[in-house]
Amino acid sequence: MSEFVWPVRVYYEDTDAQGVVYYANYLRFLERARTEWLRSRNIDQTELRRSEGLVFVVHGINLKFRAPARFDDVVYATARVSRFSAARFCFEQRLHRDEPDGPVLVEGEVEAACLDGATFRPRRLPRGLVEAL
Amino acid sequence: MSEFVWPVRVYYEDTDAQGVVYYANYLRFLERARTEWLRSRNIDQTELRRSEGLVFVVHGINLKFRAPARFDDVVYATARVSRFSAARFCFEQRLHRDEPDGPVLVEGEVEAACLDGATFRPRRLPRGLVEAL
Amino acid sequence: MSEFVWPVRVYYEDTDAQGVVYYANYLRFLERARTEWLRSRNIDQTELRRSEGLVFVVHGINLKFRAPARFDDVVYATARVSRFSAARFCFEQRLHRDEPDGPVLVEGEVEAACLDGATFRPRRLPRGLVEAL
Amino acid sequence: MSEFVWPVRVYYEDTDAQGVVYYANYLRFLERARTEWLRSRNIDQTELRRSEGLVFVVHGINLKFRAPARFDDVVYATARVSRFSAARFCFEQRLHRDEPDGPVLVEGEVEAACLDGATFRPRRLPRGLVEAL
Repeated sequence: MSEFVWPVRVYYEDTDAQGVVYYANYLRFLERARTEWLRSRNIDQTELRRSEGLVFVVHGINLKFRAPARFDDVVYATARVSRFSAARFCFEQRLHRDEPDGPVLVEGEVEAACLDGATFRPRRLPRGLVEAL
Repeated sequence: MSEFVWPVRVYYEDTDAQGVVYYANYLRFLERARTEWLRSRNIDQTELRRSEGLVFVVHGINLKFRAPARFDDVVYATARVSRFSAARFCFEQRLHRDEPDGPVLVEGEVEAACLDGATFRPRRLPRGLVEAL
Repeated sequence: MSEFVWPVRVYYEDTDAQGVVYYANYLRFLERARTEWLRSRNIDQTELRRSEGLVFVVHGINLKFRAPARFDDVVYATARVSRFSAARFCFEQRLHRDEPDGPVLVEGEVEAACLDGATFRPRRLPRGLVEAL
Repeated sequence: MSEFVWPVRVYYEDTDAQGVVYYANYLRFLERARTEWLRSRNIDQTELRRSEGLVFVVHGINLKFRAPARFDDVVYATARVSRFSAARFCFEQRLHRDEPDGPVLVEGEVEAACLDGATFRPRRLPRGLVEAL
């Protein structure tokens, strides 16, 4: 599968008093790339939830923080599905500074699961997603 | 009505690269005081939403930011209902540093409304809240 | 002065359990528009801080929340400087849904001040900003 | 080493439109426990930064998300240092719902590093921390 890239601008809201992006906020950037990858595949999360009661949630993360991003930086968030099963899919993701192949700031894996939005029980991935994979 | 006070510790998550609490995050502190004031009055927002479909939302804010809070500070958030009508109630709120009557960091008014959680149309305040007021 | 417009996509990170954007997060959207307006005027906040020790902070906000934004919405944040003095400038701002002149979600005023980044004492607006105004 | 436990109340600010705590916000809860553990050991991060230029940053995280927390829940964040070297220390952490030994919501490891706050280069752990370990 090819890699999806999404640019993110760093604002004050993302940083903390150490002068760099707050560690949990890198996870927001990673999610924006996953959300936009789904959108680019015509997978409409709002519609999936309304019509089929499906939501995607993060089941696990394994990330290394290599270098910080700062206010005003542009960061490129990548997402590539590395494997999937009936109810889960796993992304390899990175954040690069300045350019899509610039210095690596964060890298690792994010495992997502497909759940029933009401019961939070596992559900099979929707067909549109399996086809996109 | 008497004034309610709720202590808040400032963590890195609350701050930004200017070295102080990010301006929007003071609104989180103010809401914690409102939420805890409701809890102290035995008004259960989760139950109100489930059984009556009611939610409280903020309709307006008018705040002055006087001085900053920093990492590790303890901030005291105050809340006092200054007026209310059939579907709205207005809080006077302040944030103080170090002590409940320490230096004022933020002060102003927050107007809350009672809405139907599904339609976001105005609803009458629940009886328990009117009695508490 | 003309009005500046900046589009913002709503992600899960911006929403809360009421199903809409969390009230404090609209302030993030408003700040993105102010930050991008400064950038569009070639005012480099990182450089101003490094070379002159200047930072901009929010001194006051007066906002009405008219209607909510939801996950997946595109929101247009506007910013227009309505007045300024030696050390302060005031923005009229709005958030519109779907289109730059779509339904108004949030509207009001945000007053910013120019401060010394170390002492948080007032400083005169930098010349580049005054010229932009 | 014994385990440190810190209670956290879930507010609307922590949740998202799926009705549960937003995944990145669990990392805030985990950090509050680490920060309070340091405080309980008389390790003053503000003072360490000012006098020795030291900051602690997260270098890696490996977490599983087992079950969600919701608005109004009380969550107990645990922290126990499982190993450390000259410049790094690793926490085993969990989040439990309702009680310190209630259902596990999140569990895993968080690796922290000691850095120079200006250069972000590795620095030896401060003596007070090594003694606490």
